[in-house]
Amino acid sequence: MSAPATYDVVGVGNSLVDVIAHAEDHFIESEGLVKGSMTLIESDRALSLYHAMGSAVEMSGGSAANTMCGVASFGGKAAYIGKVADDDLGLVFAHDLRAVGVTFRPGRPEGEMRTGRCLILVSPDAQRTMNTYLGMSSWLHPGDLDTDVIADAHVTYLEGYLFDRPEAKEAFRTAARAAHGAGRMVSLTLSDSFCVDRHRDDFRGLVRDDVDVLFGNADELRSLYEVDSLDEAVAAVRRDCRLAAITDGKDGSLIVSGDEVLRVAAEPVAKVVDTTGAGDLYAAGFLHGLTHGRPLPECGRLGSIAAAEVISHVGPRPLVELRRLVTF
Amino acid sequence: MSAPATYDVVGVGNSLVDVIAHAEDHFIESEGLVKGSMTLIESDRALSLYHAMGSAVEMSGGSAANTMCGVASFGGKAAYIGKVADDDLGLVFAHDLRAVGVTFRPGRPEGEMRTGRCLILVSPDAQRTMNTYLGMSSWLHPGDLDTDVIADAHVTYLEGYLFDRPEAKEAFRTAARAAHGAGRMVSLTLSDSFCVDRHRDDFRGLVRDDVDVLFGNADELRSLYEVDSLDEAVAAVRRDCRLAAITDGKDGSLIVSGDEVLRVAAEPVAKVVDTTGAGDLYAAGFLHGLTHGRPLPECGRLGSIAAAEVISHVGPRPLVELRRLVTF
Repeated sequence: MSAPATYDVVGVGNSLVDVIAHAEDHFIESEGLVKGSMTLIESDRALSLYHAMGSAVEMSGGSAANTMCGVASFGGKAAYIGKVADDDLGLVFAHDLRAVGVTFRPGRPEGEMRTGRCLILVSPDAQRTMNTYLGMSSWLHPGDLDTDVIADAHVTYLEGYLFDRPEAKEAFRTAARAAHGAGRMVSLTLSDSFCVDRHRDDFRGLVRDDVDVLFGNADELRSLYEVDSLDEAVAAVRRDCRLAAITDGKDGSLIVSGDEVLRVAAEPVAKVVDTTGAGDLYAAGFLHGLTHGRPLPECGRLGSIAAAEVISHVGPRPLVELRRLVTF
Repeated sequence: MSAPATYDVVGVGNSLVDVIAHAEDHFIESEGLVKGSMTLIESDRALSLYHAMGSAVEMSGGSAANTMCGVASFGGKAAYIGKVADDDLGLVFAHDLRAVGVTFRPGRPEGEMRTGRCLILVSPDAQRTMNTYLGMSSWLHPGDLDTDVIADAHVTYLEGYLFDRPEAKEAFRTAARAAHGAGRMVSLTLSDSFCVDRHRDDFRGLVRDDVDVLFGNADELRSLYEVDSLDEAVAAVRRDCRLAAITDGKDGSLIVSGDEVLRVAAEPVAKVVDTTGAGDLYAAGFLHGLTHGRPLPECGRLGSIAAAEVISHVGPRPLVELRRLVTF
């Protein structure tokens, strides 16, 4: 840890409200969706899919925003930078961050875009199929970043989902420069193997040049390095980053630190209800441990505990205070 | 039952989206709220209370709208008339009705009002404290009614909460005329003892002149007739209406039909989580039975079953198909 900082972690990501409905497998098939995937959709498709899907519940989401809520729920100091429109869902998104103690630094709204939303279909087997209308959220550019907040946070946490438009890519590099310039750490979550696929070279450059702590699941890591085995991906990532945490569903996670590879078990869950937010909350627990100087196995365990909580209910953010689940 | 009808029930009510957060008793006290009550609030207060309350979940609500979703969930044919604005929450409200098969006939949006919302604080003991910003919902006037739908429904179900403004009162009388003119029944739920208190004479006139089937809880009935005992209220209501169903929390309900008074037990519930929607869903079950020619004890039992389902989870509408809970 470097000099004292106001924030443990500041997240930068797509600001989305989740619209969550249960759906049978035949509905997912009839809509031509791939179960378990994340698909970007335009506003027309968002309307038609919303029209077809069942009665829903709205809850704030967004991957990095979920992670910041997790950090705050552990008792950490979290901030979040992202873009919403001046509409009902934008108000909801901002409220739900502030209500759990996350400092929100919204970028400037602009144009006619609506606040982004993610239409999530939860299957009977608890898998979620996500259909994201990014709306205003994806229009983040370097000028939207509060670099004072970034310089004043131990870790800046970047969400790979956002790394799709040139302005957002430039914003990531600006954020990384501001963080490193203040002697802070930069963390990235790969978010999605298709997103990695679309921007592999840029992701590799970012990971190699700017990222200290990398999060991703096994698929995303293999996609990043275009290798078939996780062992090869581990060998590649240790050349690029000081630290990587690779989640692998119910098999738990691997923590790669230099030559060391630690395996951390998943926490047992009585009933998996909705896997939305599992990776986001794993990152929250891990980062909370890391920014409090805890040993790596404990960072992983905090991640597992937070992930287990969030998959045991509908919705992508914790329903209990995570600090109550740990003695730490 | 009279001539065949396209709809079993058409509801007329305040169109609201519920904004639901958990809250400790001390928060409810510190905000000067009365636990278990419903308070009407203006837009400034809605903003300040929303700012103060915790992270929330948004779900469509509105008393009569919840009832219509319950009717549809039993397999009945339901329609709903109400007013929303052209904003995100209006879209959510309309979607969630149509998604469960309720025909929605929105009145015309007008002016700068937003879609109404109800800020609901759920206490650890499962009571809900409701704070309603009516917004567009309360501006229903006779011209917003689709009288063809009303004439084509066995029962028109009016929500007492709406009976606050002169235009809405006139709309109720217009609806009752359209229903009776087509040989249909008119039903009213008293909704709230404070609302009854504000408009007692008008409510009594409506009940006496226009209502065939009255719903209310014991408090509301006593307030309507300004009597201390439920027995006195029962004696009064049987002079005014053909049929009344009076809910009494965990003591179940009383059905008053002429000289007959039936007591119906509440259904057992493993854990009461959130009492929001209990009365709305009782009315759904009762009306579904009534419009299918079932005997009164069974109408009451369907009401109890629907109420038990909705209080066993957060949110004011059923999470399972109610038709699956009954052999009928």
